[in-house]
Amino acid sequence: MEFEVIDTQISPGGRMEVLSKAEVVQLLDNSHGGLYQVFRSCALAVLNCGSGLDDGKELLERYKSFDISIIQRERGIKLDVKGAPASAFVDGVMIKGIQEHLFAVLRDILFIKAAIEDDRKFDLNTTEGISDAVFHVMRNANLLKPQVNPNLVVCWGGHSISSDEYDYTKHVGYQLGLRGMDICTGCGPGAMKGPMKGATIGHAKQRITTGRYLGITEPGIIAAEAPNPIVNDLAILPDIEKRLEAFVRMGHAVIVFPGGAGTAEEILYLLGILLHPDNAELPFPLIFTGPETAADYFRQIDQFIAATLGPKAQQSYQIIVNDPVRVAQEVQAGIRQVREFRKAKGDAYYFNWLLKIDAEFQKPFEPTHENMRNLALHKNQETHLLAANLRRAFSGVVAGNVKNQGIRAIEKHGHFEIRGDSEIMASMDTLLASFVAQNRMKLPGKAYTPCYRVIK
Amino acid sequence: MEFEVIDTQISPGGRMEVLSKAEVVQLLDNSHGGLYQVFRSCALAVLNCGSGLDDGKELLERYKSFDISIIQRERGIKLDVKGAPASAFVDGVMIKGIQEHLFAVLRDILFIKAAIEDDRKFDLNTTEGISDAVFHVMRNANLLKPQVNPNLVVCWGGHSISSDEYDYTKHVGYQLGLRGMDICTGCGPGAMKGPMKGATIGHAKQRITTGRYLGITEPGIIAAEAPNPIVNDLAILPDIEKRLEAFVRMGHAVIVFPGGAGTAEEILYLLGILLHPDNAELPFPLIFTGPETAADYFRQIDQFIAATLGPKAQQSYQIIVNDPVRVAQEVQAGIRQVREFRKAKGDAYYFNWLLKIDAEFQKPFEPTHENMRNLALHKNQETHLLAANLRRAFSGVVAGNVKNQGIRAIEKHGHFEIRGDSEIMASMDTLLASFVAQNRMKLPGKAYTPCYRVIK
Amino acid sequence: MEFEVIDTQISPGGRMEVLSKAEVVQLLDNSHGGLYQVFRSCALAVLNCGSGLDDGKELLERYKSFDISIIQRERGIKLDVKGAPASAFVDGVMIKGIQEHLFAVLRDILFIKAAIEDDRKFDLNTTEGISDAVFHVMRNANLLKPQVNPNLVVCWGGHSISSDEYDYTKHVGYQLGLRGMDICTGCGPGAMKGPMKGATIGHAKQRITTGRYLGITEPGIIAAEAPNPIVNDLAILPDIEKRLEAFVRMGHAVIVFPGGAGTAEEILYLLGILLHPDNAELPFPLIFTGPETAADYFRQIDQFIAATLGPKAQQSYQIIVNDPVRVAQEVQAGIRQVREFRKAKGDAYYFNWLLKIDAEFQKPFEPTHENMRNLALHKNQETHLLAANLRRAFSGVVAGNVKNQGIRAIEKHGHFEIRGDSEIMASMDTLLASFVAQNRMKLPGKAYTPCYRVIK
Amino acid sequence: MEFEVIDTQISPGGRMEVLSKAEVVQLLDNSHGGLYQVFRSCALAVLNCGSGLDDGKELLERYKSFDISIIQRERGIKLDVKGAPASAFVDGVMIKGIQEHLFAVLRDILFIKAAIEDDRKFDLNTTEGISDAVFHVMRNANLLKPQVNPNLVVCWGGHSISSDEYDYTKHVGYQLGLRGMDICTGCGPGAMKGPMKGATIGHAKQRITTGRYLGITEPGIIAAEAPNPIVNDLAILPDIEKRLEAFVRMGHAVIVFPGGAGTAEEILYLLGILLHPDNAELPFPLIFTGPETAADYFRQIDQFIAATLGPKAQQSYQIIVNDPVRVAQEVQAGIRQVREFRKAKGDAYYFNWLLKIDAEFQKPFEPTHENMRNLALHKNQETHLLAANLRRAFSGVVAGNVKNQGIRAIEKHGHFEIRGDSEIMASMDTLLASFVAQNRMKLPGKAYTPCYRVIK
Repeated sequence: MEFEVIDTQISPGGRMEVLSKAEVVQLLDNSHGGLYQVFRSCALAVLNCGSGLDDGKELLERYKSFDISIIQRERGIKLDVKGAPASAFVDGVMIKGIQEHLFAVLRDILFIKAAIEDDRKFDLNTTEGISDAVFHVMRNANLLKPQVNPNLVVCWGGHSISSDEYDYTKHVGYQLGLRGMDICTGCGPGAMKGPMKGATIGHAKQRITTGRYLGITEPGIIAAEAPNPIVNDLAILPDIEKRLEAFVRMGHAVIVFPGGAGTAEEILYLLGILLHPDNAELPFPLIFTGPETAADYFRQIDQFIAATLGPKAQQSYQIIVNDPVRVAQEVQAGIRQVREFRKAKGDAYYFNWLLKIDAEFQKPFEPTHENMRNLALHKNQETHLLAANLRRAFSGVVAGNVKNQGIRAIEKHGHFEIRGDSEIMASMDTLLASFVAQNRMKLPGKAYTPCYRVIK
Repeated sequence: MEFEVIDTQISPGGRMEVLSKAEVVQLLDNSHGGLYQVFRSCALAVLNCGSGLDDGKELLERYKSFDISIIQRERGIKLDVKGAPASAFVDGVMIKGIQEHLFAVLRDILFIKAAIEDDRKFDLNTTEGISDAVFHVMRNANLLKPQVNPNLVVCWGGHSISSDEYDYTKHVGYQLGLRGMDICTGCGPGAMKGPMKGATIGHAKQRITTGRYLGITEPGIIAAEAPNPIVNDLAILPDIEKRLEAFVRMGHAVIVFPGGAGTAEEILYLLGILLHPDNAELPFPLIFTGPETAADYFRQIDQFIAATLGPKAQQSYQIIVNDPVRVAQEVQAGIRQVREFRKAKGDAYYFNWLLKIDAEFQKPFEPTHENMRNLALHKNQETHLLAANLRRAFSGVVAGNVKNQGIRAIEKHGHFEIRGDSEIMASMDTLLASFVAQNRMKLPGKAYTPCYRVIK
Repeated sequence: MEFEVIDTQISPGGRMEVLSKAEVVQLLDNSHGGLYQVFRSCALAVLNCGSGLDDGKELLERYKSFDISIIQRERGIKLDVKGAPASAFVDGVMIKGIQEHLFAVLRDILFIKAAIEDDRKFDLNTTEGISDAVFHVMRNANLLKPQVNPNLVVCWGGHSISSDEYDYTKHVGYQLGLRGMDICTGCGPGAMKGPMKGATIGHAKQRITTGRYLGITEPGIIAAEAPNPIVNDLAILPDIEKRLEAFVRMGHAVIVFPGGAGTAEEILYLLGILLHPDNAELPFPLIFTGPETAADYFRQIDQFIAATLGPKAQQSYQIIVNDPVRVAQEVQAGIRQVREFRKAKGDAYYFNWLLKIDAEFQKPFEPTHENMRNLALHKNQETHLLAANLRRAFSGVVAGNVKNQGIRAIEKHGHFEIRGDSEIMASMDTLLASFVAQNRMKLPGKAYTPCYRVIK
Repeated sequence: MEFEVIDTQISPGGRMEVLSKAEVVQLLDNSHGGLYQVFRSCALAVLNCGSGLDDGKELLERYKSFDISIIQRERGIKLDVKGAPASAFVDGVMIKGIQEHLFAVLRDILFIKAAIEDDRKFDLNTTEGISDAVFHVMRNANLLKPQVNPNLVVCWGGHSISSDEYDYTKHVGYQLGLRGMDICTGCGPGAMKGPMKGATIGHAKQRITTGRYLGITEPGIIAAEAPNPIVNDLAILPDIEKRLEAFVRMGHAVIVFPGGAGTAEEILYLLGILLHPDNAELPFPLIFTGPETAADYFRQIDQFIAATLGPKAQQSYQIIVNDPVRVAQEVQAGIRQVREFRKAKGDAYYFNWLLKIDAEFQKPFEPTHENMRNLALHKNQETHLLAANLRRAFSGVVAGNVKNQGIRAIEKHGHFEIRGDSEIMASMDTLLASFVAQNRMKLPGKAYTPCYRVIK
């Protein structure tokens, strides 16, 4: 099968037009230490948005001839793009939002390299160092807005959801937009796109021209969840753990829509953090919501949490079925509390410094077959540590489903094996099976072959 | 049945904050020559948007206690609103877009009174005088934008359409928005709202923050077709004929979606003008389009035009079924021709001075029972005059369906009688019957009782 | 002597790009009722700014071949200018500020014609009607800014002043600018330019990019006092009386620098109004100020006021010598009172509706030889009426000095004769003689020949 | 003598409101490695602007109690300022321009520390590394503007000049501003302030609201040449050599007004660079200009250059006496050539990468008594190296005159001794003596005691 491609040159619109000679060299450097490969694959992911493909490996194979390079011009740099997916263009002209994303990719990849990898500016062996790195990536991307009241709502949920669920995410986004709230998501399709579309209409009706649609991603996932072009602020974090940290330090409330393994990972990540004793007093609005048809889904999630993390974890969230107005109102009320808390503590509105994140949630987890097999999935540990390990299990499933490296590992070594307490394993098996049954693992089109096996 | 209402005071955001003492007196004047009644009813219409009501008479009856008055403050005027429909508010605060519409109503009603009714500035017995009045209403509303390339696409179509058709209008609007085009409609629901929503998303992806969503209405129809809050430029013309003239002098292309009697009126108006010999050379892109399911609908329209106005009229438009991308591309190509033509002739981009509009299309038609009965619906006249009379017939049907005065006249005197050549009457009857059968006459909810009788 | 001239075409930058066909015809109409002559002479005045010429008659004679006409283009109108003074250009390109002034002239002349002369919209036989006309000219020019706190300081003073006095006006303007105040003047050179230059620097240091430099003029005086290009809001009122009314209804405080007959006219106008019993409670900050060298000048003015209008008039102002910081602080304190007063009374910040202006100060005074001879300059009348007549006397002297028509009348009929009570005449003679001695009547260069004779 | 002081807290207006916890700690750290001392002294310098003091040592002694610290607030940081010079305030409120400068200081000091001192990101032993550091300081300060045509004119000249010369710098700035050019200076008083004031008025007349007034300074000199508040872009480079490099890589043309030792340093620096063979083809407009009274001054400078660097150096500049319009036109013509050259070479408009700067001009020169004594001031070396050493000699004189450390060194060890070829020494002695005679060494007020002795 042939995929239509287009060649073009594009100019940026912001600060990143200005690169030093040394930076250009790095980006063109195809060698091991150079940035070309990661830049190319992220750029391709961005250009592939809207294609209905969520397979990082297949993407690279489809567009083998894709090439991107930097040209210095008297007015700043340009990107020379060859063999780009045609879906990024309208009548031969690249969509402006996608152009911006390309330069955001460039900016963040350079910064991560320069500030985090090369300079050893941050001590990544400490909790503070990691948080500082996250802070600096966001600040360098000009995404920390002081002088603004808390209004950023993180929306999590699946990239593969029913049209019914999708419409519901739009309605919720619309109600949030009408109330002046901004949206932050993982920036792919489905539950990551719907709230932004809805909020766009809500903002238009309220004449809010400064609405933010913030997408937070990382090089591993971006191919599967390319930022939709409504995203007008984009950040690429170095890895999944820093991406998750960026979500919870930036967002003032979190809404969870129906989703699959990735959504489960996000829920476990956040619950694990909120269960940390240091965060006991800290307000953090968390709402699970979906249309009537998703009522069962959330019952399952709720049961899984009850069975694994227990009733205290259940107190961290509320479930609202089929009521976008109430969701928006609850979020708004919750954010009001967040604001008062931060004001009282003098904590920044734009970065939640006070949230305690345990090192277990910060250390990058590499989902090798061995690491997956050895996860400690039992109750002989503090609840928030169990949450951390469960989070890793789901993270591995996501990798096996959609990430380039994960897919290749599964192809080579077969299923991941997940083992642990039988009760936990039973719950997990049920949950994963339901994700499969409901087509939540992958975009529809092909039959889903599980990348894991739960060893009971 | 009780309808929820809210009281509030609002401040404007533009030039209209500044009223003279004399103007305030006029607006508060409830006497015959005063402006209070027309201001109140238009304001109520604007506030009622999104209610699913398209009956001007019922609206006034529902909100009997509604009151609006002007307060002078040191920083400019405020509007004191009492008993306003709750749907105009979010958590008690009026939607910003609706606020703007209220002040647009104020602006235009004052201007129409001062410049057109009182000052006799314009000689409304001449074609030039009427066009000049339309020009000045639009200029006073700051809607004539020089220095801008032609890009305004007028979208006509029904307020009561199927969800399939509605989604299609969004897709077309999206493709227009992606190509940087702006939207102008009659500003109600249905085909008047969908293209704006679609274009909003298209503009967001292209980072166009200056997208225009222009609504053009008049005091008689506004209650039935309240401007949706996405409309960010609103003009109230004195009557239906000047409103139609504003559409065709402002727009650079026209798209017609499926609709009912009002849409037929618009089509006949435009075809009648384009058939005028003086307009023979003038490019004017006109496209009829809808989803697959609307293919039959346009076949009927096409047949009606063939049967009444003949094959020359059929050459003025093209019909495109189920292809939003092609619609957008054809519109764009057509506008390119418009631009070249105006450039060659030195005619303004922002106002189509060169379009010849015959007095027959400018003179206000009052749809009394007598006037309706006496319409000359035969072929013993020039085709563009037949078009003018057919236009009037459909205009009367719209009045009888949704306008306050029309509904009251029907209640009092029974059906309008429409008579003429039997062939024309047969075509007309068929077309109207199909509108009824397809629920295009009124918003669904109640059974439709025709306000007319075709005398064959 | 030859004066360098330039031909060019210019485009505007605002709303006035959009003219109707009828308006263009009017502006090109050279007949009696047409606007061409007044448009041409005001345009020439604007273009002549910075030339060091303050003689309306000589200006027209210098640039006999000057011509200006309007061209319709697809993007709006352009002005075709032929034989324009070269001083309006930098390397052949017209200074942007002067371009804007040309279009302001166009806007106001059209509006005055359409709204005031033709439409009889305003009843100019009533005090209310005249004030309404002033209001509408200012609103049409978009100069009434609601939502802004009072901060507009009117600066009056001579166009022909010493460099010492000129520097002082800059220092005062600088201190006003540092405090966020905007400047309004009669828009010529000297004391009308200095405060704007100073405020520009003050605003720059305070990062105020929206500083207003409002010039208010009228067709008779504009040739002698061409707006300097810093003026970024310009209004042309129909005559000197409406211009004076615009000053006092727009300004929140008035500073008077040294000047000649025109400054005396302005002082008498304002004192006459403030002496009206209805204005007794109304706060109106009024400061006379100049450098050390101007102390004597203000002593003379003060004595003249004492001798003619008496001690009550003296209480309306304070004299501050050589202390720009104190001037700015007093103005600020005074404006604070104005703000509280308007807030308490609900009067607009942007237009002083509550100020009572007697018809005597509104009726246009035509300085014919007969009218000048018959002025009632005696004390057998209410003080504010004496002020009105004294104002007229000085107005006539200004006309004879610098206005085209006045100069021609003097050339034809000889001196104006001014007669009245001997005491008043003695004071007046002394004051006028001192103006002559101090070169305040005309720009230096030629010996000044008085246009008047005081009959004692 | 007592100096009035004020305490206050201020909020910033830009990106720097967002500091990480670690950064705040560094800025408050008074220890050797901490930033507090340099931050405090630069902040004090900024606040002292307009005081007429150019003595870095005396400044610190005057305001011993001055203290500045950072407070974290929910909306970002604030600065808590105690004992600040009252001249930075208007009626108790800090001038906005000075506020911005404080935060610019903060931004640059943090960046220099983090990126240059700590991270060893740049290899400061190489020419490329130093240039890269300069580039990154400017980029981090958001001062590299792509998409802008070359228009930045560097104005050098003395901080202590006659009022005649000062007015002349204003006239030149005015003519530059009228032609849309921006100004860059060393940001103190005198010739560094006048062009900015003039350009402000020129920009106002041309309605240019985005005019740039860029000041480039370094921690050693800032106390003597505090940025005037018109400066709306401020950069603090690590040392004098990087500051000079920033000037010549950012500016598109250089104008030299009369000045003293600092101006001589700047001239020698630039001539030395332009004499490098690699720069032979590179266009670089350089104009020496002043009023009639400065004709002699430039004759002396010209003779000194002839005597030391020879006729080739003299071809790098032109001298224009008393003709601001011609200066502006020549600059404009020169910049047109720069633009064409960069376009042809693909070099950035915003950073002159192609200019070759020898390591001799980049290595920081520390003006100790020993280093001064050992300068190689003879003709047995390439001309551009002689220029480098002469530059160092004048740099030392500046330090001894106005810099805190230099003054202390002179107090302790007596005069700097400058020795070399007798011919060169004679020229130098003459030039320095004339600077002293003309009061160009220091601001007037105290008798100047030379800090050097020329050993002939």
